[in-house]
Amino acid sequence: MAKAGKKVEQITSRDVDFAQWYTDVVKKAELIGYTSVKGCTVLKPAGFAIWERMKEELDRRFKATGVQNVYLPMFIPENLLQKEKDHVEGFAPEVAWVTHGGENELTERMCVRPTSETLFCDLYSKDIHSFRDLPRLYNQWCSVVRWEKTTRPFLRSREFLWQEGHTAHATAEEAEERTVMMLNVYADFCKEVLAIPVIKGRKSEKEKFAGAEATYTIESLMHDGKALQSGTSHNFGDGFARAYDIQYTDKNNQLQYVHQTSWGFTTRMVGAIIMVHGDDDGLVLPPKVAPTQVAVIPIRMQQEEVMEACGQIRDELVAAGIRTLVDDSDKSPGWKFAEHEMRGVPIRLELGPKDLEKKQVVLVRRDTGEKIPAPIDGIAGTITKMLADIHDSMYARAKEHLEKHVTTVKTYDEFKDAAENKPGFIKAHWCGCQECEDAVKEDTTATLRCIPFEGGEPEEGAVCVYCGKPAKYNAYWGKAY
Amino acid sequence: MAKAGKKVEQITSRDVDFAQWYTDVVKKAELIGYTSVKGCTVLKPAGFAIWERMKEELDRRFKATGVQNVYLPMFIPENLLQKEKDHVEGFAPEVAWVTHGGENELTERMCVRPTSETLFCDLYSKDIHSFRDLPRLYNQWCSVVRWEKTTRPFLRSREFLWQEGHTAHATAEEAEERTVMMLNVYADFCKEVLAIPVIKGRKSEKEKFAGAEATYTIESLMHDGKALQSGTSHNFGDGFARAYDIQYTDKNNQLQYVHQTSWGFTTRMVGAIIMVHGDDDGLVLPPKVAPTQVAVIPIRMQQEEVMEACGQIRDELVAAGIRTLVDDSDKSPGWKFAEHEMRGVPIRLELGPKDLEKKQVVLVRRDTGEKIPAPIDGIAGTITKMLADIHDSMYARAKEHLEKHVTTVKTYDEFKDAAENKPGFIKAHWCGCQECEDAVKEDTTATLRCIPFEGGEPEEGAVCVYCGKPAKYNAYWGKAY
Repeated sequence: MAKAGKKVEQITSRDVDFAQWYTDVVKKAELIGYTSVKGCTVLKPAGFAIWERMKEELDRRFKATGVQNVYLPMFIPENLLQKEKDHVEGFAPEVAWVTHGGENELTERMCVRPTSETLFCDLYSKDIHSFRDLPRLYNQWCSVVRWEKTTRPFLRSREFLWQEGHTAHATAEEAEERTVMMLNVYADFCKEVLAIPVIKGRKSEKEKFAGAEATYTIESLMHDGKALQSGTSHNFGDGFARAYDIQYTDKNNQLQYVHQTSWGFTTRMVGAIIMVHGDDDGLVLPPKVAPTQVAVIPIRMQQEEVMEACGQIRDELVAAGIRTLVDDSDKSPGWKFAEHEMRGVPIRLELGPKDLEKKQVVLVRRDTGEKIPAPIDGIAGTITKMLADIHDSMYARAKEHLEKHVTTVKTYDEFKDAAENKPGFIKAHWCGCQECEDAVKEDTTATLRCIPFEGGEPEEGAVCVYCGKPAKYNAYWGKAY
Repeated sequence: MAKAGKKVEQITSRDVDFAQWYTDVVKKAELIGYTSVKGCTVLKPAGFAIWERMKEELDRRFKATGVQNVYLPMFIPENLLQKEKDHVEGFAPEVAWVTHGGENELTERMCVRPTSETLFCDLYSKDIHSFRDLPRLYNQWCSVVRWEKTTRPFLRSREFLWQEGHTAHATAEEAEERTVMMLNVYADFCKEVLAIPVIKGRKSEKEKFAGAEATYTIESLMHDGKALQSGTSHNFGDGFARAYDIQYTDKNNQLQYVHQTSWGFTTRMVGAIIMVHGDDDGLVLPPKVAPTQVAVIPIRMQQEEVMEACGQIRDELVAAGIRTLVDDSDKSPGWKFAEHEMRGVPIRLELGPKDLEKKQVVLVRRDTGEKIPAPIDGIAGTITKMLADIHDSMYARAKEHLEKHVTTVKTYDEFKDAAENKPGFIKAHWCGCQECEDAVKEDTTATLRCIPFEGGEPEEGAVCVYCGKPAKYNAYWGKAY
């Protein structure tokens, strides 16, 4: 039943149909618009602004580690794509091909980048000559295209926005250090900015990036118990360097191949924000990426002193660096409450004549629904603290949810039962061979999410959950988006 | 002859071969890298960082006028492109076509956006219903593709970065107001951030944007006397609204077509910075977009107290918001001087043991070459002021150059002589008919750059420079990039 003052169009409850709830939120919070090209969506202002905040903060963190931004072309000539065998096999089936420029057929067709390893390698092979040219720590923010069959807003689009970092180093050790460093940047960002806890670990050979020696991943858990690969960092060793001939002269005047990494983070994480934090009233945005952090709702807009006080409070909050708007549209307060709830604004500030008499406002937390009266005097400080509290409690709640949804199993029957009946990660030992991994996926649709950095070693005497041979790893498995 | 301490590889002098000078600067300042796809270049860190600064500052100015950022797909289905007749005629000959997704041929081919009017119209036709939905003030930062035959770094690329603003309004007046507002944003930005003076005006029917009712432009003048169209703002009237059926219900419950605008600014302006401000030693960057504003060069790096002082000064400058680096690479000071000159760093700060004794540094202005000793005490204030002075004098010099390179002519012989022998703008009266405009272009390769907002009215009794009929306008003409 609709609560009094809710928006007329309700969204589906999460427990009734999680997928439909997700679609409803994406649409009704006006994050996404559909176009006539399947899987190519519009990021509307409310959706794009979240990405913009994420981008700004990630970019700052990259630069603090010495990364420089560049921009490479979107087109990759077919022969360039084909130089690294595993890589082309991984990507060629799902690229979009440009065959004509203007009225002429191209002599060689080009694909729209699905990722830009090949272009960065081409650049590095021209620009790197000496040890003095290393390391190269480049990153670009752009869109990429993967012609997928099944698509879903934010989570799987044919075109999506991301950043891709590509680095070249003198030694294998340096490349490994950078690979882990960037995974940690992602994990810290998820915790400190998105309030999303993640599990850090390594992908299996089967799940690693096409052309990589090792792929590290952060995995998060959605409210429905499905996993989401949330950011990956790849160590290429010197594989691409050999395929693309990227050599430098070392201090002893010897030719050496460089060692490379790449790492990426995408708009799918807007989807993660929705699915980790959202509730039946809509979006719940982590304060640090919320385009609007405080929505001021005047009660009795016709009273001049109410509007004046709202304006003063907004100015004070904005001056304190808090993203604030006064909703002076001609809708009822109840309608506005529901609308800003739907959009996930962390704090609603209500102010009417009675509040004004008491020199106070009413603050309503989006994450808990709590209504907290607060004096107007010192309001910016009160709200700054509350935003920090909201972040912390959103993170704590998500962490508790993740921890409650890890089922540790010993036998394959337990594994199958968990896969069938217990949403969340399954922690199970594994021998390390792909046959077992394939069989588990075939039986249960669960995939090996990662071998965690912490707790990935097998327990003493443990055996593979599938084949019973001695275990090499203690891994996280799960059904994933 | 090479100056002492200059880089070994000299760049061509501007007076000897301006085009070669431009290419040399672009390459040696490491702004651009070439790829195997003609006209698709790499924006290297030094080049991209300039654009990043421009983007940041423009974006702030857009948002201050109420603009919101969005992201629309890069693909436009052929049928969508074809809805507005003039528009498709203008762009279809130079688009890149995608015909295959993965291994399948598409049922309808798509072009990579050459500009996104059609996509914004499609979005607006779905989202705009009532006067309450207006205005819509959307902008996106993205890359676009135009399959041009002749290409040149920054100035004309097959793929380039830009922003495109697209707005929808209830009335023609509001649309016109927005069109002019955004042109003024561009003009102010050029003056206040790029130190580039511009002429504001209107394009002729022949030169206006495909599908627009009116195109406004800012035109700047390069050092060689050629014009560069530097930003455009278009008023579409209700033409696109009729073609794409974008209607809203007004306050009287009547259906009305919206009125639209679009406006764009591109990476070609990095080229303008090079060609307006650069000199025979390389790039000269306006301080506000210079990725590095101060390069600190230690003299005698082996002396610890020198390096310490350099570090302290850098910290002080960075704390004051000045982008500063200490060049502690193992090159000679002379080499470093030339390198940072080439890269256009506005101020070089030299610090050696003798300076340290005197508690001073030597500041060298890139724009004038002046060497100015300055006390270490209060250095951040001194440099902040100097950066502002550099900006002002770069603007003043460019403005003087522009004003000195306008030739006012009465007769067609004078026009032809100016076009042949006097680099710069030609100011000449025009009857307003396209035949004259075509003939002038055919004879001289000069095009009508704009009918200026100020001084575009004909003088009393003036006649068209070509046909001798009464003049309607007093226009700027010129050869252009």
